[in-house]
Amino acid sequence: MHRVTFIPQGLTTRAPDGATIFDAANWAGLALDGTCGGRGTCGKCRVRRNAGGWELACRTPIHEDCTVEVPARAGRLRTIPFGLHREVALCPNVHRVVLSLTEPSLTDARSDLLRLSDALREAGYGIRQTPGAMRQLPRLLRGSASTVTAVVCGDELIAMEAGNTEDPCLGLALDVGTTTVAGAIANLKTGAVEASDSVLNGQAAYGADVIARISHAAEPHGLADLQACLIETINALVAKLVERCGTTRELIYETVAVGNTTMLHLLLGIDPTGIGVSPFVPAFQDPVTVRAADLGLRLHPEARLNTLPILGAYVGADIVAGLLATEFLRPQDDELRLFIDAGTNGEIVLRRGDRCLCAAAPAGPAFEGAQIQCGMRASAGAIEHVKITDDVHLGMIGGNERPVGICGSGLIDAVAELRRCGLIDQSGRFARREEARGRVPDAVADRLVDCHGCAAFLLSAPEDAVVLTQADVRALQYAKAAIAAGTGVLLSRFGARCEDIHAVLLAGAFGSCLDTGSARTIGLAPPVELGRIRSAGNAAGEGALVALLSRGEWEAARQMPLYLEYIELAADRGFHDRYAEALGFPLARQGPADSQKA
Amino acid sequence: MHRVTFIPQGLTTRAPDGATIFDAANWAGLALDGTCGGRGTCGKCRVRRNAGGWELACRTPIHEDCTVEVPARAGRLRTIPFGLHREVALCPNVHRVVLSLTEPSLTDARSDLLRLSDALREAGYGIRQTPGAMRQLPRLLRGSASTVTAVVCGDELIAMEAGNTEDPCLGLALDVGTTTVAGAIANLKTGAVEASDSVLNGQAAYGADVIARISHAAEPHGLADLQACLIETINALVAKLVERCGTTRELIYETVAVGNTTMLHLLLGIDPTGIGVSPFVPAFQDPVTVRAADLGLRLHPEARLNTLPILGAYVGADIVAGLLATEFLRPQDDELRLFIDAGTNGEIVLRRGDRCLCAAAPAGPAFEGAQIQCGMRASAGAIEHVKITDDVHLGMIGGNERPVGICGSGLIDAVAELRRCGLIDQSGRFARREEARGRVPDAVADRLVDCHGCAAFLLSAPEDAVVLTQADVRALQYAKAAIAAGTGVLLSRFGARCEDIHAVLLAGAFGSCLDTGSARTIGLAPPVELGRIRSAGNAAGEGALVALLSRGEWEAARQMPLYLEYIELAADRGFHDRYAEALGFPLARQGPADSQKA
Repeated sequence: MHRVTFIPQGLTTRAPDGATIFDAANWAGLALDGTCGGRGTCGKCRVRRNAGGWELACRTPIHEDCTVEVPARAGRLRTIPFGLHREVALCPNVHRVVLSLTEPSLTDARSDLLRLSDALREAGYGIRQTPGAMRQLPRLLRGSASTVTAVVCGDELIAMEAGNTEDPCLGLALDVGTTTVAGAIANLKTGAVEASDSVLNGQAAYGADVIARISHAAEPHGLADLQACLIETINALVAKLVERCGTTRELIYETVAVGNTTMLHLLLGIDPTGIGVSPFVPAFQDPVTVRAADLGLRLHPEARLNTLPILGAYVGADIVAGLLATEFLRPQDDELRLFIDAGTNGEIVLRRGDRCLCAAAPAGPAFEGAQIQCGMRASAGAIEHVKITDDVHLGMIGGNERPVGICGSGLIDAVAELRRCGLIDQSGRFARREEARGRVPDAVADRLVDCHGCAAFLLSAPEDAVVLTQADVRALQYAKAAIAAGTGVLLSRFGARCEDIHAVLLAGAFGSCLDTGSARTIGLAPPVELGRIRSAGNAAGEGALVALLSRGEWEAARQMPLYLEYIELAADRGFHDRYAEALGFPLARQGPADSQKA
Repeated sequence: MHRVTFIPQGLTTRAPDGATIFDAANWAGLALDGTCGGRGTCGKCRVRRNAGGWELACRTPIHEDCTVEVPARAGRLRTIPFGLHREVALCPNVHRVVLSLTEPSLTDARSDLLRLSDALREAGYGIRQTPGAMRQLPRLLRGSASTVTAVVCGDELIAMEAGNTEDPCLGLALDVGTTTVAGAIANLKTGAVEASDSVLNGQAAYGADVIARISHAAEPHGLADLQACLIETINALVAKLVERCGTTRELIYETVAVGNTTMLHLLLGIDPTGIGVSPFVPAFQDPVTVRAADLGLRLHPEARLNTLPILGAYVGADIVAGLLATEFLRPQDDELRLFIDAGTNGEIVLRRGDRCLCAAAPAGPAFEGAQIQCGMRASAGAIEHVKITDDVHLGMIGGNERPVGICGSGLIDAVAELRRCGLIDQSGRFARREEARGRVPDAVADRLVDCHGCAAFLLSAPEDAVVLTQADVRALQYAKAAIAAGTGVLLSRFGARCEDIHAVLLAGAFGSCLDTGSARTIGLAPPVELGRIRSAGNAAGEGALVALLSRGEWEAARQMPLYLEYIELAADRGFHDRYAEALGFPLARQGPADSQKA
């Protein structure tokens, strides 16, 4: 690895030997000028290395530490503010380019395509041919106009229109989850998100989790069924989105799709069965670009679908997207950083400097509210916050007054509050009602009830009957223990301890408003100062959007596997011992005071 | 242009600034070692420039004249002898690679595709993914075998099979002519041509020449009809060929297709109407690679179809193929060389050193035997040779005893012989029978007959009634005058005269056994020493085969437009004067004696 510093921005990154300066800039989060996406055709990404002569960043490999001077104008890209305390430089992969072509003559009888590609090159877009657009070309040029609008996706000419149409150039960010599929339509010229929404994954009929889906894929026609369901789900989502922003699906020219490893296999119609059985082998890992229409997606007929890379059977492109959205790999210090995406699989990424390990811990479905007595996914009516004072106070998603059930963040809050009040002990056992009286107000103690012979705590008013059972607490213990044990394995590979962790990012399918204090109280987050723990919400969807809006970020995501090492926890001897040890809850916190209370 | 000399072979070529040494080697006709086709992934093409260190030829751009040392082992490629006094180094674009893959485990859970691509890289084949083959992969690897056969086309993995199948790896060379479509199936491992044949182009129903086809393409559904006809023609041809060599079409993984500009447009379903009207603009020129199945061709489902570049509206990929087959652009001296492909359009290429001009002369259909009273294409029963001594002696294609008609080469022979005997004067007029007596034996003179009020010469026995009419002679005069005038235009651009021409190559649709002396006698070939004129037969089909068998030659063909300048004769003021001057026949030859009689 070589250290590359960009001036005057003062950004630093490390790049593997032979990587180009252009790649290093992407990696550093610096969007260099240029329209060709690093293909050497637009000639705009000039930089000066170690005060030498100007050269093209995308053609210059790095073989030693260096300082790279970027010309002043390269900072002028429009940036889009993102929810995760960051900005993204707008440099999408798709452009609509309006061109005025000269008329052919006997002395200039260049072919239609050459005339067009020469004009595009002059405008800064180097293209390879595409027979699709080639078929439209003669009719357009012979018809009306010397003015045409070309749609360029990367280095491909994917569409042509007569005249200067003022239509927008749209892109679609997709986060394909096992339970829900989220999508956002973005205007690629302005970076504005025009509409976003999520729908249930139509594959739910074939089982709730990825293992059920993988089993079904092994049945005759199973794979085709599952792919068809998912494509139908996405087509329906797109229909909703385009209606909402008053546009047509044919103006969507590119999609970035992320999701867990199984979902990406099913999306592409690729057999996922290797993921389901030891030694857990996906069929592919590298990012894929296909014609969306070839999958049955109804967008522009030549629209491309790009996936982000997969790191392992249970660390998918959703994690790569999450790391991208949170710029997890970007800071160039030697602090220890932890990223956790808590779902049915808890994905864990731990990094210090150039070394970055990732793993998947089998957490079970508790974080998603599944197999919890009154559990539900994070949607309207779900309890997402619980506070116990004189009585129990609930916060519901969608502002509902009466709770329907409890989602992941509510579950974590409830258990954390009960633990704080002493109604759950270190082993996870509910206090008996008589033990509770005196510790807590009677109104709270009286909520300790018996539920079909099992200890439980009544969260809601009695008529709504939303309870938290002893079994629910156990399920949460299993889930958080898996993640804590996985974190422990990764820490041990660094020879580090929990206290060494400088920053923790918590993402996951539990509502976006996870209380970081509660997460620490139950032991999901490690015992570090609260100011070091941050909730990242649906970082995967954000990451897909970031990659859609910025080719540089997309390239950074593509290169991420170079920087990450996948650890198979099933092959780690210490994992099960750590898991057993982590089942209990942490003792009441006695460490350093939090410098900043959430 | 920089001069590059390869040692120890002693081959020299000129290369444009920035071209790689690998490209220059292709251009020089030297096949460097390597399996990745110049993509920098196999690391085998090491060379030493100006006695410096070893570097990869495909990664090293040329910026000055240089001498390049090639390691000894780089000469070991199998070479295939070709009809045109040349050899071709066998290095096809498609390979079947048998691989033994290690079993996955918890500590080596690389994805199926990565495991395969790592094994391929070790075997010297760098691939980009292809979703098509990816879909087959999990089933194959989960099924039986750790041994798989991968089919790699360029840098794409296009097919996978379980085990080590011993099936051959086949390719198809196609020459798509307006009248006939010729094809050859070649074994890409041995270079052997397994079967070759030609069939009539099914588009004939829409008119005999390209102008008629272009007109039809402008009708509603016309373009689709024409494409469907052509695809059906090729599918039928392939059926014939695979039956003849006892194989299946699914083993054909790659096709190189050449043809005139219009035929390539129709093959790809691209509107050719710009070709038909001034200023004669094709829709595309660059080589195209598409999935053959996307055009409706039934070969392996993932087989690729590649075209060679087009130089202009009437100088198509067939000419590029002809130049490739005959190595026309390869000699590195400063001699003046002429290539003529005489068909309905007479394509003319004239070269000296780095400068190479090409043009198309509107010759009309005489050379193809069309619009000639007893004309026919070069097939069984056609008179292809005529000799006049005591009487008329005929040579028929297929060894027929009785002639059916006369093809292009027979027409040229007949007129040349009649001219030599004084039965046709310098203006092209037939002698009257009474004038002829005394000049020629009576048996010959008596063949001067009246045919429906028009002077004619009876070539066959009276009962077969194959005649050559005065109108036929005129048609041939128009045809050869167009080519001679075009040649004159190109010569004038060089400031040269006919006598300066060092070598003449004659290709064309007239049978492959054109008599070069006759061609010179009628003025089709310029008045140079006979030893300098060579007949090249169907050079286009040979060129397609050369490109199919050798990726280096294919690359050389792809770069040919860099070296050729297209001259539009319709825009040249001198063309029509030259045409009028060239209508008569040359006077009896009085120049230097031929050093070598044919």
